Amino acid sequence: MVTRITSKDNFVIKRLKQLESRKYRDRLGMFVLEGPSVIEESIRENIGLEFALYSDSFIQNGAAGNIIRGLEGRGVPVYSVEDRMFAAVSGTETPQGILAAARKPEWDSSVLEKPGANFIVLDRVADPGNMGTIIRTSEAAGFEGIVVIKGSADPYSGKVSRAAAGALMRMPVFYAASGKELVDMMKKNGKRTVCTDPRSSVYYYDIDISRDTAIIIGNEASGVSGEIFENADLTAGIPMEGKTESLNAAVASCILMYESLRQRNKQNTAL
Amino acid sequence: MVTRITSKDNFVIKRLKQLESRKYRDRLGMFVLEGPSVIEESIRENIGLEFALYSDSFIQNGAAGNIIRGLEGRGVPVYSVEDRMFAAVSGTETPQGILAAARKPEWDSSVLEKPGANFIVLDRVADPGNMGTIIRTSEAAGFEGIVVIKGSADPYSGKVSRAAAGALMRMPVFYAASGKELVDMMKKNGKRTVCTDPRSSVYYYDIDISRDTAIIIGNEASGVSGEIFENADLTAGIPMEGKTESLNAAVASCILMYESLRQRNKQNTAL
Repeated sequence: MVTRITSKDNFVIKRLKQLESRKYRDRLGMFVLEGPSVIEESIRENIGLEFALYSDSFIQNGAAGNIIRGLEGRGVPVYSVEDRMFAAVSGTETPQGILAAARKPEWDSSVLEKPGANFIVLDRVADPGNMGTIIRTSEAAGFEGIVVIKGSADPYSGKVSRAAAGALMRMPVFYAASGKELVDMMKKNGKRTVCTDPRSSVYYYDIDISRDTAIIIGNEASGVSGEIFENADLTAGIPMEGKTESLNAAVASCILMYESLRQRNKQNTAL
Repeated sequence: MVTRITSKDNFVIKRLKQLESRKYRDRLGMFVLEGPSVIEESIRENIGLEFALYSDSFIQNGAAGNIIRGLEGRGVPVYSVEDRMFAAVSGTETPQGILAAARKPEWDSSVLEKPGANFIVLDRVADPGNMGTIIRTSEAAGFEGIVVIKGSADPYSGKVSRAAAGALMRMPVFYAASGKELVDMMKKNGKRTVCTDPRSSVYYYDIDISRDTAIIIGNEASGVSGEIFENADLTAGIPMEGKTESLNAAVASCILMYESLRQRNKQNTAL
């Protein structure tokens, strides 16, 4: 049974407004999933949802009936509102008409100890679109988790969540308070840390990044912090022709993660 | 000498408003470059600029004096306006205070005949951010040009131009009216066409894409058109682990372009 919301003072609307801020996402341990395909995925994968909300015009979406029944079947409270009120809580300019408040998954740090596992480290990555793209691609490249260093964008913000296209529900996310903590964490778990370095003439495809590797992506403007750079096990250049001075941070990450996958698959084929 | 603009009816303001639409960009053969670093680049590389405009607060930018003198030194008419009027013609939410109207470069189609040269083909790529990222990365990966198939976003729109970060001034851009025209164009110039195919178990790193290759990137939702897919010389799978169903179009393109660069550099090293 769907509950109709008519007042913006309703607790569902208030909660969604709260979840626009990092403070409340942290305090409540919740984040927002938005759009029919990610909501469908969350039903299929039995992700903990607190509630879901759809707009009147969402009913015209061919998948609407199935999605709403799926949510109700899992015992998720479902609410409906007028399009205008939906637009006021949606994080997008052209809302797709459905969103849900999800509980942040909790991850056991034993994931970090997994032999062979690779990780991607975000060292003060500021752009939510870049962060979401990196999270989405890290899952596809077979990486086992993300480590977010303090000073980065919140991986559970709406923009990151949308760019990650569902991968946030599945990818383990860990935190480090500083570059030093990150380096120690990786050392303890037998991971080699790799930074990109524009000045390096040893390119990323000339070093073994197939396994037990933590690839560190720095801030879009200032790069990897000195603390990490000086303590990293390896530095990797990315060749650049023409007059381009740098690559987009997400592009650089994805190129390195897929080189890691390529090396791993080639080794497996050779065995 | 800088000319002060106080009226929004001034022809410079009107021209910038016109250049927000593709119709006028096509008709006038012009596009907008925005931000100090790309304007600096355009001065250094002697790009044809019709005029430049800066906002009052731009003067506080440490590079302002040099940039304005550089523009004047090249005989580019320079105008100044109040911040508010600048914001009204800027394409960004947080304007950096300087922009210029540039003449679109014209490219000789003999570039397409260059032996060994690789190209990236955009088959109805709709997202300007993706398109700009692809253009920026294609230059870094040593590709020689872009071919844009009808139905794609305009490569000279403000959003593409900003994401391309200057590469639009240097990368040759060609057009094809249809998938068939594209296939014929590449065949005539001895280029192998490569499409990505999620169902292919032959992966992109298992085929030779080092030289004389045209990598075709399809529309974000519907992929490469049937016309091209059926006539392509090669299809390349991209391995994806986990539950990700697809990669972002720009990410997929960049992974393939850098694999092409890796293969080329490895062959050169082996010689």
